[in-house]
Amino acid sequence: MDLNNLHLLSASEAARLIRDGIISSEQLVEVCLARVREIDEQVQAWAFLDPDYALAQARAADELRLSGKPIGPLHGVPVGVKDIFDTADMPTEYGSALYAGNTPSRDATVVAKLRAAGAVIMGKTVTTEFAYLSPGKTRNPQNPEHTPGGSSSGSAAAVAAGMAPLALGSQTNGSTIRPATFCGIVGFKPTHGLIPRHGMLATSRTLDHVGLFARTIDDIALLAEQLAGYDERDPDTRPRARVRFVEVAAEEPPLEPMFAFVKTPYWERVDEETKEGFAEIIEQLGDRVEEVGLFPSAMAAWDWHRTIAQAEMAANLEREWEKARDCLSELLQAQIERGREVRAVDYQRALGRIRPVYEGFLELFEQRYDAILTPAAPGAAPKGLASTGDPSFCTLWTLCGMPAISLPLLQSSNGLPIGVQLVGPRDGDAKLLRTARWLAAKVAASER
Amino acid sequence: MDLNNLHLLSASEAARLIRDGIISSEQLVEVCLARVREIDEQVQAWAFLDPDYALAQARAADELRLSGKPIGPLHGVPVGVKDIFDTADMPTEYGSALYAGNTPSRDATVVAKLRAAGAVIMGKTVTTEFAYLSPGKTRNPQNPEHTPGGSSSGSAAAVAAGMAPLALGSQTNGSTIRPATFCGIVGFKPTHGLIPRHGMLATSRTLDHVGLFARTIDDIALLAEQLAGYDERDPDTRPRARVRFVEVAAEEPPLEPMFAFVKTPYWERVDEETKEGFAEIIEQLGDRVEEVGLFPSAMAAWDWHRTIAQAEMAANLEREWEKARDCLSELLQAQIERGREVRAVDYQRALGRIRPVYEGFLELFEQRYDAILTPAAPGAAPKGLASTGDPSFCTLWTLCGMPAISLPLLQSSNGLPIGVQLVGPRDGDAKLLRTARWLAAKVAASER
Repeated sequence: MDLNNLHLLSASEAARLIRDGIISSEQLVEVCLARVREIDEQVQAWAFLDPDYALAQARAADELRLSGKPIGPLHGVPVGVKDIFDTADMPTEYGSALYAGNTPSRDATVVAKLRAAGAVIMGKTVTTEFAYLSPGKTRNPQNPEHTPGGSSSGSAAAVAAGMAPLALGSQTNGSTIRPATFCGIVGFKPTHGLIPRHGMLATSRTLDHVGLFARTIDDIALLAEQLAGYDERDPDTRPRARVRFVEVAAEEPPLEPMFAFVKTPYWERVDEETKEGFAEIIEQLGDRVEEVGLFPSAMAAWDWHRTIAQAEMAANLEREWEKARDCLSELLQAQIERGREVRAVDYQRALGRIRPVYEGFLELFEQRYDAILTPAAPGAAPKGLASTGDPSFCTLWTLCGMPAISLPLLQSSNGLPIGVQLVGPRDGDAKLLRTARWLAAKVAASER
Repeated sequence: MDLNNLHLLSASEAARLIRDGIISSEQLVEVCLARVREIDEQVQAWAFLDPDYALAQARAADELRLSGKPIGPLHGVPVGVKDIFDTADMPTEYGSALYAGNTPSRDATVVAKLRAAGAVIMGKTVTTEFAYLSPGKTRNPQNPEHTPGGSSSGSAAAVAAGMAPLALGSQTNGSTIRPATFCGIVGFKPTHGLIPRHGMLATSRTLDHVGLFARTIDDIALLAEQLAGYDERDPDTRPRARVRFVEVAAEEPPLEPMFAFVKTPYWERVDEETKEGFAEIIEQLGDRVEEVGLFPSAMAAWDWHRTIAQAEMAANLEREWEKARDCLSELLQAQIERGREVRAVDYQRALGRIRPVYEGFLELFEQRYDAILTPAAPGAAPKGLASTGDPSFCTLWTLCGMPAISLPLLQSSNGLPIGVQLVGPRDGDAKLLRTARWLAAKVAASER
């Protein structure tokens, strides 16, 4: 084994090798840190990274393993954490100067779950300001002149650049799927309420989701399985049996999956290369895919999303706005100002539309389709760092709380990756990963 | 047994006599109908009552019992249903001319549960317009020149006048506790989300509760036990083990309960007779009661309630307002107009205050008290039919979703009943009934 390439190991492989004593957590973290030293001056994925502290956690993990005590499924594996999740031992600054030096005294639920699974909390990754639109410092590791996407910019970039095999992000519109597709990795936004958000920056109870980044679907399954569950401090979670992500994702589907290809009203924004890529995948899928138009009630989903996002962000960031609005970006100030004007009746009407819109999709799934196939973005990461790109291809699925995954199956002529998005029914998360694995294998086989 | 007094039987007694074959459901319903003929021209409790259909249900119940098939806990017992619950076999008009002749094709969840328990759906009782403030035609059976209270006017009056031993109502502010105290019966508003509201007129998801009326606490327990439970169509209910209302309410408390006497900021509205009545009860309770002041965060609860009620009513009645606002009362139009002006940020801020305010009370219960003792209203039913009275003594408990019960323990010099309200912690419903039974027995013993 070439120890210098340990940073390319998947989390599942790394966890197995550590468990079996073939490599140590310290070796793995050291190689990831070497990768940071090598590339992060250019990529700028980290809001906070203390190499000594990451190594100390790794050595403690190695000692625990050697003691013979039970270890968790992520034992010794480094994970990047978007800087909107509270960490008791590192700063948490939400990408805002207002929170410079903020040090929570408790871990977010997902951070505590990572530690319980044995993970090394590698550091905090760059987020856009309050996980909204104003970019952070991160650049796309595939090409530093291009945006990494946002708002989970640092998490996507860190995983894509091999600085950590796994990272946590979030999604309120397109903040996981978009950076995943732009950076060429797998991004997963599970069903709303599946992974608890206690200790995560709250911008919108209705729309906020925890998001996951990895380089393989198996790794997404491994990470998701550690994080899903009930937390009475997140009222949108509920008690449920353990979701067998790893087991289900590894299975072969009993039947070849059936896909609904959905262009959405924004298809005209999709660039030619991406359209061609989708045409190829659709040809490969043959009779396993059918184009499905959006039903009328879904066409206004983007408006409902905007109303809810504005109103809830304005409420959640009211204290910051009242105390220090000049310290907020103009983009965010404008969003909050719009949100403060939203009337309660319009906000409630938008909330009330989510269920009927979702039920239209549920009917599709129940009648015929295993997953919706749709673009993750209009194309590859756009050039420039002033914008994090267009989230329109994520909005509808976020609004409905449906699980969505982006797979780096296409490539643009300039070498940048292009993601393909699959969307499943609520609570069909594990099966969606299984379907995604089938699709990835199918596309890979066609390319041979 | 004097068959002419069957209408004074409690529901528990009646159910037992029917079960044992000592009386028939037909006899019971016939005597209740005789009571309707005798008094309802004056009281006007019913929005819809078809005597033949009530008797037909009773005869069917008697036949089922004679067949030897299993029967339910309310077998053959007539129940009045506030005319805001959908009934598949009777009109449902919401107290609004807009819905004259409206005939739903399905039962509300609670109506279906009543039928499953064997109850006879006696008829639909008068509600104020859309369960808000504009009075219906009902008069107080204790004195027809006085209001019966609202919005569940007909249910309270029907039970008080012996036209049915049980009735369903609702409470969004004081719509169960207030008519119960004015009519001199027991009214119970359980924990928010304990009894499903599917098929009930929706005015405010946050504040709407199903309410129960009976003449005894045991009957409240019997009725509540049939109705509590999970319904996936009411997102505020949740799966839970069956609440053993009847068993717990019948038990002696393991220790003498401890009461927190709470005057609320509206104590100055309470009339002298009611204040004297409370002083007597407090003297009887001795060291089992302590006066507790409201903590500061609870003082604004009435404002939060107003904001939420206005905003949610405006959203829920938007269709009626847009299509036919001239058919709504001025009171309701004004409420909706105020609601349409509420901003989403203010609405969300109000929603966000419920939990902290409730947690202040929860601490009281956890540390020392079994129940809060507080007025149900400023005094007896006021004279006149133009207003349904002052709900201010219910607002705080409704906002917090806490269970509340009104017991007719006091009387004014003009012979009208005055209720005493007990309030418990959320999900402490059965224990609250047990505490209420203890208090009622204590007061009765003191009067001997």
